[in-house]
Amino acid sequence: MSKLIGNAIFGQSGGPTAVINASAAGVFTEALQQTGVIRKVYGAAHGIVGILNEKFYDMGQEDPSELELLKTTPSSALGSCRYKLAKAEVDDTDYKRLLEVFKKYDIRYFFYNGGNDSMDTCNKISKYLQNAGYECRVMGVPKTIDNDLFGTDHCPGFASAAKYIATTIMEVYLDARVYDIGMITVIEIMGRHAGWLTASAALAAHKGHGPDLIYLPEIDFDLDKMMADVKRIYAKEKKVIIAVSEGVQTKEGKFIPELVGEVSVDAFGHKQLGGTASVLADYFKKEIGCKVRGIELSLMQRCAAHLASKTDVDESFLAGQTAVRCAVDGMTDFMVGFQRPESGPYACEIKLIPLSEVANAEKKVPREWINDEGNFVNEHFINYALPLIQGESTVAIEDGLPRFARLKKVQAEG
Amino acid sequence: MSKLIGNAIFGQSGGPTAVINASAAGVFTEALQQTGVIRKVYGAAHGIVGILNEKFYDMGQEDPSELELLKTTPSSALGSCRYKLAKAEVDDTDYKRLLEVFKKYDIRYFFYNGGNDSMDTCNKISKYLQNAGYECRVMGVPKTIDNDLFGTDHCPGFASAAKYIATTIMEVYLDARVYDIGMITVIEIMGRHAGWLTASAALAAHKGHGPDLIYLPEIDFDLDKMMADVKRIYAKEKKVIIAVSEGVQTKEGKFIPELVGEVSVDAFGHKQLGGTASVLADYFKKEIGCKVRGIELSLMQRCAAHLASKTDVDESFLAGQTAVRCAVDGMTDFMVGFQRPESGPYACEIKLIPLSEVANAEKKVPREWINDEGNFVNEHFINYALPLIQGESTVAIEDGLPRFARLKKVQAEG
Repeated sequence: MSKLIGNAIFGQSGGPTAVINASAAGVFTEALQQTGVIRKVYGAAHGIVGILNEKFYDMGQEDPSELELLKTTPSSALGSCRYKLAKAEVDDTDYKRLLEVFKKYDIRYFFYNGGNDSMDTCNKISKYLQNAGYECRVMGVPKTIDNDLFGTDHCPGFASAAKYIATTIMEVYLDARVYDIGMITVIEIMGRHAGWLTASAALAAHKGHGPDLIYLPEIDFDLDKMMADVKRIYAKEKKVIIAVSEGVQTKEGKFIPELVGEVSVDAFGHKQLGGTASVLADYFKKEIGCKVRGIELSLMQRCAAHLASKTDVDESFLAGQTAVRCAVDGMTDFMVGFQRPESGPYACEIKLIPLSEVANAEKKVPREWINDEGNFVNEHFINYALPLIQGESTVAIEDGLPRFARLKKVQAEG
Repeated sequence: MSKLIGNAIFGQSGGPTAVINASAAGVFTEALQQTGVIRKVYGAAHGIVGILNEKFYDMGQEDPSELELLKTTPSSALGSCRYKLAKAEVDDTDYKRLLEVFKKYDIRYFFYNGGNDSMDTCNKISKYLQNAGYECRVMGVPKTIDNDLFGTDHCPGFASAAKYIATTIMEVYLDARVYDIGMITVIEIMGRHAGWLTASAALAAHKGHGPDLIYLPEIDFDLDKMMADVKRIYAKEKKVIIAVSEGVQTKEGKFIPELVGEVSVDAFGHKQLGGTASVLADYFKKEIGCKVRGIELSLMQRCAAHLASKTDVDESFLAGQTAVRCAVDGMTDFMVGFQRPESGPYACEIKLIPLSEVANAEKKVPREWINDEGNFVNEHFINYALPLIQGESTVAIEDGLPRFARLKKVQAEG
């Protein structure tokens, strides 16, 4: 296959992770080395929105040591977006504009980093460009703390969030039992539809310092059953720690704050729901009468680069690097995915998944990895997740605090 | 001075910290080495309560490598308490019981680790034993994330919490600006009466990734002024990050949830206040109409051993070790404190402070370290705090997660 010579653009999309910039580092480092093929390497400001607005940066002008620091810099260094493209059949305005920009800047390589929605975007753009007869290699780079992308063993970003969650719960576990009095601690974890992150609390339990109960969105939530579980453990231990996904809901589709919180309605008529952790903690306080603590791991679970998994950092970099290498070798229309050997020790093997298969499909925690009671995960999950959180990322430190990448962000010129 | 030969007991009191067990390691390691003087070394379960109930452990039976791991194990390994002793003149029941236990176990060294209330306890016990003619050396070992103990330059536990807060805010800062839309983030930090911890958010700002506004309990809170500050910054930047102490109140003594939250009353007639961060975030959403995020750093800020300051770990160990050495050398009735040279580079020097001076006095952030507007701290605070957060504690890792100390906790026999 003849070499496709031209420029490359990379964009970040969706919620950031602790390691999304490690994938950026992988793309940029590799693309900048492909000097005979890729002439200019652009970084889009705020993903697809930056491309539509011709707002992107010339990454060749960045200091290589700052690009290296991207590996340990959390959040989306280029800025992200949650922009949803219409179907081209319905409204092709954005697609036409994209094609115009791609032509103007001779963009022949498009790398897009994100989760389900972003892979859908990537797929739509790829198909449109093909139909328009514009030659461009399109590769998706996976990213999501939610770990719910189809076709890949796991997703960059998940393991670092899992390591943060497990470590933090181990620490909170010790803190929550210092006093010789009863206490119930509720820890709320991200994941609207898939319970991978909340299940990671089990890694702390595996080390003897974890929750007693774990509630995932995969299981229909039953408040009475939870209360019975909590009361039983409280009666015996006087300490209960509960890990609960923000996405947990009853089979009628009600979320926990709707069940036990005081729901107020704002000026727009939208229901204002309290946080799951705080309303559940208040509920236990009322029903059981003990000390309670509701903890929401909030943004920290997805941006704690200081506690990232080295395995995750390396694999995220690899995903970006591989996307570039595959595209230069002639591949297009794939997402870079991972698989592991069916038996023997863990290893991360590359697997290319057609974008059309990934787009909008969602991977959940298998029912057989959850216990019969639906309130914990079993050794299948531990065996799956433990290899992913191995190794400690080394964040550059300056004056006792992290030294994150500082990009010049030189605006590209057409 | 002749040597006082007998047994020693150590107890932990009040809220735990990331490094309180480092002081325990300092006391135990040193006391176990004083073989000619200290015969048995006991650890009290749940502080003074364990002594009253004769529930304490024989620390000589612990594996030295596990005592070493205490340096990087958060929370109170022996258990803590919030037990307040009556004045001996009013009710001497507990004192008589303590004396009885001290005599039964020939306890001649009493080390107590805690904050203001605990130093008061320590002082009362010391005076009672003196009046009773029972020879016992009593030394306080300081501990509090709140950093509000009188007479010492700073307190063990503060710097690690400060490092956690600054690092976490740097990470959240990056996360909170990934989207090209307006957003206000409110971060709630511990400290009921003193603003040291909240002020630590300024360390993140010092590195260019910190809050725009900082509100401490030292300054009378004015909601209208805060709203004007937030609106001004929002209009210009579209992103506002606010660090606010849970203890902030108006000059009439009203806390933020009382000002802007919906206060409900529970079955006992107690006011139920929402968290400061979440009610403030909701308030900004209503008033400004932008995306908001309320984040409470909760227990994590005091138990994040994985992010402890090496300086703090070392100094906490030193405080415990020094207490033992001083007591063996004949000193009693002091708290171990720290001071730094008046000029030149930071160094931690030991200073002994009479317990009677420490007890119940509270040290606040000086007014001149806070800006005129009362919404940020100045370089005096940075110069004070920065040396304290230097160095990264190395937590032992097993299988990608912390390996915390596992004590045998062999019950002592009289």
